[in-house]
Amino acid sequence: MFKFFYAPHTCALASHIALEEAGAEYEAVRVDFKVNAQRGPEYLVINPKGRVPSLVTSEGILTETPAILTFIAQTFPKARLAPVDQPFAFARVQAFNSYLCSTVHVAHAHRMRGYRWADEPAALEGMKKKVPVSVGECFDLIERTMFKGPWVMGETYSVSDPYLFTLAQWLEADGVDPSRFPKVQDHRSRMAARPSVTKALAEELEGAR
Amino acid sequence: MFKFFYAPHTCALASHIALEEAGAEYEAVRVDFKVNAQRGPEYLVINPKGRVPSLVTSEGILTETPAILTFIAQTFPKARLAPVDQPFAFARVQAFNSYLCSTVHVAHAHRMRGYRWADEPAALEGMKKKVPVSVGECFDLIERTMFKGPWVMGETYSVSDPYLFTLAQWLEADGVDPSRFPKVQDHRSRMAARPSVTKALAEELEGAR
Repeated sequence: MFKFFYAPHTCALASHIALEEAGAEYEAVRVDFKVNAQRGPEYLVINPKGRVPSLVTSEGILTETPAILTFIAQTFPKARLAPVDQPFAFARVQAFNSYLCSTVHVAHAHRMRGYRWADEPAALEGMKKKVPVSVGECFDLIERTMFKGPWVMGETYSVSDPYLFTLAQWLEADGVDPSRFPKVQDHRSRMAARPSVTKALAEELEGAR
Repeated sequence: MFKFFYAPHTCALASHIALEEAGAEYEAVRVDFKVNAQRGPEYLVINPKGRVPSLVTSEGILTETPAILTFIAQTFPKARLAPVDQPFAFARVQAFNSYLCSTVHVAHAHRMRGYRWADEPAALEGMKKKVPVSVGECFDLIERTMFKGPWVMGETYSVSDPYLFTLAQWLEADGVDPSRFPKVQDHRSRMAARPSVTKALAEELEGAR
């Protein structure tokens, strides 16, 4: 039985969906960003970085989406969420997830969390302004060069799918027209129809009331 | 026989060291950032993201440091560079590497590559100014909460070690006093003495002449 710490509308959704796909037993615990609970002393014991997601396991606590996704895939091999025994295919999953965490998520974060990288209001404003461009470029690259179809990795569904779905959810708010990316949009619709996704989303939005 | 594309003073050094540790056969090819070769048509065929590192294998091309590191560890199991068969221990390696690529490297990148996230000179200046703070905070967290010692993961050396070493090389230029982090500094000295590190560094600096 895992304990899974998340906040609605964050990248934690990717791991949440993967837990559902794996059929894992877990308790979902909402971290209330509105009262800044992610920086509170109680949560910092769980994750000193003050971020979500965190996955509490019997062996210890895991953080960082790509790591949690890999852990779920490896712990529940029957769910076939990553080709963990095929080094090249597995590395492709890792490469895609790395791009999402280090480039796509980061581009997006400059809209709301620019204070991580600058203090002056003009700098924060400048960052916010470029988000539609930088996020748009990322998804353009995904659409043109990375997305194989029907799933991210091709014929086989993997943990890269809920992760892409999660970040694609932010396109509209980031000022990017999703219709520029037909493959990503089609993927988004098909993902949204999966029971794992509706369950995870319902749980997060219920918790957010 | 791999083909490994790198540029000196970039995060490619981590994979370069790992290739040496693994005893892999590879040809190191320098991408000349001074003439912007990473954005040239020839290199964009290899890596449409226009970044290093890229690893050309017989099965296809891999990008993104955490993915390349995992691939090397899994392809050369005798080198024992990651506990690939122990899901929790492996996820800890992945979590550390994810933190380096998505938070530490990104904090650092705001000094030289702020144009990725804003256009106005004032915004770029504001980003540059905060680098010593944001990078300093990252290494403080590594020193206090992540680094187990003597290696990143504890008693066992892993691909997280060359990756931490690589990013710690940038501290001085980022305006952060490394003496604030005695464990990281000690690690840096021990890493610098490893034959794999001296060989990879010599190869990169030779190519940079």
